[in-house]
Amino acid sequence: MKLPIYKSVLWGLPAVVILSLILYGCPSQQNLASNEEAAQKVYVAPGEYDEFYGFMSGGYSGQMSVYGIPSGRHIYTIPVFSQLATNGYGYNEETKAMLETSYGFVPWGDAHHPELSQTNGVPDGRYIFINENNTPRVAKIDLKSFQTTEILEIPNSGGNHASPFVTQNTEYISAATRFSVPMGEDGDKDVAIDSYEENFKGTLSFIKMQDDGSMKLDFQILVPGFDYDLSHAGKGPSHGWSFFTSYNSEEANTLLEVNASKNDKDFIAAVNWKKAAEYAAQGKGKIMPGEYVRNYIDKEDHIAKTERNSEVRVLDPRELEGMIYYLPTPKSPHGVDVSPDGELIIAGGKLSTVIPVHSFEKMTQAIENEEYEGEIDGIPVLKYDSILAGEVENPGLGPLHTEFDGQGNAYTTAFISSEVVKWSLDTFEVLDRIETYYSPGHLMIPGGDSQKPWGKYLVALNKITKDRYLPTGPELFHSAQLIDISGDKMKLLLDFPTEGEPHYAQGIAADIVMKDQVKFYKLEENNNPYAVKSEEETKVVRDGNEVHVYMTTIRTHFAPDNIEGIKVGDKVYFHLTNLEQDWDVPHGFTVKGANTSELLLMPGETRTMVWEPKRVGVTPFYCTDFCSALHQEMQGYIRVSPADSDVEIAYGTG
Amino acid sequence: MKLPIYKSVLWGLPAVVILSLILYGCPSQQNLASNEEAAQKVYVAPGEYDEFYGFMSGGYSGQMSVYGIPSGRHIYTIPVFSQLATNGYGYNEETKAMLETSYGFVPWGDAHHPELSQTNGVPDGRYIFINENNTPRVAKIDLKSFQTTEILEIPNSGGNHASPFVTQNTEYISAATRFSVPMGEDGDKDVAIDSYEENFKGTLSFIKMQDDGSMKLDFQILVPGFDYDLSHAGKGPSHGWSFFTSYNSEEANTLLEVNASKNDKDFIAAVNWKKAAEYAAQGKGKIMPGEYVRNYIDKEDHIAKTERNSEVRVLDPRELEGMIYYLPTPKSPHGVDVSPDGELIIAGGKLSTVIPVHSFEKMTQAIENEEYEGEIDGIPVLKYDSILAGEVENPGLGPLHTEFDGQGNAYTTAFISSEVVKWSLDTFEVLDRIETYYSPGHLMIPGGDSQKPWGKYLVALNKITKDRYLPTGPELFHSAQLIDISGDKMKLLLDFPTEGEPHYAQGIAADIVMKDQVKFYKLEENNNPYAVKSEEETKVVRDGNEVHVYMTTIRTHFAPDNIEGIKVGDKVYFHLTNLEQDWDVPHGFTVKGANTSELLLMPGETRTMVWEPKRVGVTPFYCTDFCSALHQEMQGYIRVSPADSDVEIAYGTG
Repeated sequence: MKLPIYKSVLWGLPAVVILSLILYGCPSQQNLASNEEAAQKVYVAPGEYDEFYGFMSGGYSGQMSVYGIPSGRHIYTIPVFSQLATNGYGYNEETKAMLETSYGFVPWGDAHHPELSQTNGVPDGRYIFINENNTPRVAKIDLKSFQTTEILEIPNSGGNHASPFVTQNTEYISAATRFSVPMGEDGDKDVAIDSYEENFKGTLSFIKMQDDGSMKLDFQILVPGFDYDLSHAGKGPSHGWSFFTSYNSEEANTLLEVNASKNDKDFIAAVNWKKAAEYAAQGKGKIMPGEYVRNYIDKEDHIAKTERNSEVRVLDPRELEGMIYYLPTPKSPHGVDVSPDGELIIAGGKLSTVIPVHSFEKMTQAIENEEYEGEIDGIPVLKYDSILAGEVENPGLGPLHTEFDGQGNAYTTAFISSEVVKWSLDTFEVLDRIETYYSPGHLMIPGGDSQKPWGKYLVALNKITKDRYLPTGPELFHSAQLIDISGDKMKLLLDFPTEGEPHYAQGIAADIVMKDQVKFYKLEENNNPYAVKSEEETKVVRDGNEVHVYMTTIRTHFAPDNIEGIKVGDKVYFHLTNLEQDWDVPHGFTVKGANTSELLLMPGETRTMVWEPKRVGVTPFYCTDFCSALHQEMQGYIRVSPADSDVEIAYGTG
Repeated sequence: MKLPIYKSVLWGLPAVVILSLILYGCPSQQNLASNEEAAQKVYVAPGEYDEFYGFMSGGYSGQMSVYGIPSGRHIYTIPVFSQLATNGYGYNEETKAMLETSYGFVPWGDAHHPELSQTNGVPDGRYIFINENNTPRVAKIDLKSFQTTEILEIPNSGGNHASPFVTQNTEYISAATRFSVPMGEDGDKDVAIDSYEENFKGTLSFIKMQDDGSMKLDFQILVPGFDYDLSHAGKGPSHGWSFFTSYNSEEANTLLEVNASKNDKDFIAAVNWKKAAEYAAQGKGKIMPGEYVRNYIDKEDHIAKTERNSEVRVLDPRELEGMIYYLPTPKSPHGVDVSPDGELIIAGGKLSTVIPVHSFEKMTQAIENEEYEGEIDGIPVLKYDSILAGEVENPGLGPLHTEFDGQGNAYTTAFISSEVVKWSLDTFEVLDRIETYYSPGHLMIPGGDSQKPWGKYLVALNKITKDRYLPTGPELFHSAQLIDISGDKMKLLLDFPTEGEPHYAQGIAADIVMKDQVKFYKLEENNNPYAVKSEEETKVVRDGNEVHVYMTTIRTHFAPDNIEGIKVGDKVYFHLTNLEQDWDVPHGFTVKGANTSELLLMPGETRTMVWEPKRVGVTPFYCTDFCSALHQEMQGYIRVSPADSDVEIAYGTG
């Protein structure tokens, strides 16, 4: 059986959009600052620090990248959902479990939206969260150490895109299914894809931050089988609510570029999560099957562990009132952003010719007055005119995302017309526009989705790079552009390349994150069961076909550095402890022919790699991080004898 | 049995070095350019290009990073010796074989020295090579596409550090063992480690660039069981020779920080590779066992293949005269660099208080006059005084590496005193010195190891970062510093962070590399056996428990995007072809719970991932690269039924 194949249309863009592009043309202003001025503004002199941390998702790299703003310098990569051949995340025994899922080990993820934890609606520098889109997960990164310390999978979800957005005190982190999936009383369902309308449902998930800092999947809300795209929590007066865009309210299951672009309006789902949380606390809703894991770095021994779960509380709007409402919104809305004062709910209607802006106050009144135009699966649909605060005219083509400067202005990216448009939250008038190169998706202003944006800079995260940097063959890094928003007119300051695809980014004043950072791990607090705290404790122990090597590193030798008695067929565990107790003195370790891993060891840390030697011989090992003047001398040998050899375990140094 | 453990000494530095540090102190000059001046010099305005490509090794990341100079912007990462969760190198079926070795699949390597191909002693922009230190290999990257196209393993070697250095027309690429290993007539030997002096040998390997651009291990030269550290080929008058530093001429096998630092002098090995190549061409030497692989991207179908080899020609200096000489060199020399005119051979004696400079002319005369002070394993040792051109006094502590500006000056990094020292190739006098932050290893001047350096900039590659950037917890990126060398005094311009550990770097004028680059792959030249060239050809084919999905991507849909009939226990091969034919229109692909891979597809390219679904259900897949205004609509579903289901293969779009 072969179904008919759709013939390619020109990018699948509706005619109205193509027509608009011809009519409106592209923005023409040249807002480039003078080179002299721009150079001074982005230059961070040797020995000085950037003003802001910029946290960018790695997109299809599955990681998070850290940049300095305004210099645009890439200062670190935090591994999250993918293995990283640098520090060994996802390769070594201590971190492998972080990449476990209910589907098994997933070595490579797709990260989308970094989101800083907040206190009183302001980024507080404790944590940054990020979602995995493909195998639905939310990760928590501890900003004391810049390490991923927890990953929570989301069941009953497909494409965890509208995620992870925090409430104003990080009470909850929300996540929504992008692709609806067949959901039944018995869990995963084997149904025909064309039974979509009957069987496919979405879920909105609410993860509770517990008092001990860990994440718990508190409840899910069952929603119609649309695609849910992005989200933001309310703040101030709208605290207690979260907003999710949806598209594909057509419930198409094939060729969505056409079939999910038919309706004039889709919806923003407005969720009263406080009410939903009350229902959950009261034991309302159903406990339904749902396989998912929670991986976490154990605070005691610093080793990743996996906890498995098989059910989840699901709240159904058909049974529980007042929990969720639909706000009609043109057209296939993408981003949804809430103004710093919590009153305006702004959608990026990616196929819309205006930016629709809803009023939270009008919304609550409309709910009170039951100004409904219908209901879908128990969800009242509010009347568009009852909730609308206004529409921004001529916002550029393909408006996607909006952030704020805290000075009464909003900034929206327009993907198709490649520009950022500045408009007034008061009058909804467009005040300024600036070209970007090319096709911006998200944008980031430090604190720009919080109650108190720092403003000053805007970073456009562009999807197309082409000719912005020296060419590097068919594959190019993505391009970010730093724009000065401190004056009336936006001014382009700098192009800087970004690794992977930084779907979204968050920025925060540096001093908040700098204080109280971990600089090295205290040896006396190292509770790894394979740690050794001094060279006297080092040893090599055979246990059947397993050999455990307890080894130390310090400038500039390993102990032991000569090992004999290993045999072909053994499984050798190298447990290395870095005895250094100072900042920035890592050591590395690798052995010739290593089939699983290398190691990079921060001071005070223990890391384990497995080595299964397959060939007889004497094989060198060495330090892989140039650690001191005699680094090249930091080497050793391990002897591998035949499986039937009678060479016994022996080891030593010097 | 437990051998006695050595008690830690203060970094293992000889007393003379510590004393010198106290006596000489640290450099005091402040050569920082004014912020205004420096900012202008490093600023590359939006829309403009950097002047030079900088290729930096990723060190323990196993990759190569590409930077723009002078902006210091990280514009690309080329995966070489490690898997890369971004473009799927080492994960997808088309590239996995690139990480095969004679020890099996090695997912993570340790890259050290980028080296551009040369023509007439000048970088020509065709290829860049880089070595893997741990499991000895040399990789070739094609600078038309910025892709790794060939990796050659080196047998009879341990720690391939002095590698890969090219001769002036890239006739040969040389590589040397860093750690000597037991070598016998029968290959790998199971011997006691303390039989080191008797059994352990080194090899210097010469890889021939063949007319078709492929690499062939032509011969190895057997050398004493020292550690071989770095290398450079001769040029101009010294063309035909290559120079390798050695240390551990003490032949210690444990605690080398002490035991390999005893001799006042170690050696530079001067190899007449032209003569050795003649011997090899004449069939001289022995064919000895040595397992190694050559991996390459097949030019026909663009799929990585592995070729296995088991023997190699070894030339023994005890039997073949005139091939190799030892130049005594103080003390544990690290780098060896040849002046642009080919006359001076400069060592970085890392525990030496001077920089020893040998004369090529004097060396050839001393060979002619047989001015030997002895012989080691058939290798004549020349008299130090007979070959010395001079010594640079007060060069800083721990001199490691030297590059050249083409204006008669040399620049040497001093690791311990954290500085770069500029000195005259004419008078050997120190002309200037500049602090670096902190502890520089290699340095790079564009073309700085060639016959015609571009000069202008110098990049110090520092080993310690500490407080140079916003802190990122215990782990920090390494730090590079850009120094203006266009005037008499060096001037510090910029700090920029680098990913992994850039042991060495090479720079080249951008216009040489920019021309004739591949921007996308032509669909009509796609000979991947699983490619489909149009949506009409897409199909899903079951073959027992294997299912092959031939799928296409184009803005903005997959064909097919609905697939049924997959069963638990199947092995599904997704073969995706990106039908786009324009620059910078990649698409991505992933499916929920993917246990092996995602895909990133350049235009015209075919990539394959394997998926072994373990759970029943309808699972979404989607495009992971934001490719167009309707990217979020680029999704599909695949239905997985129980193993005993009778659902048949069906598929379609729209």
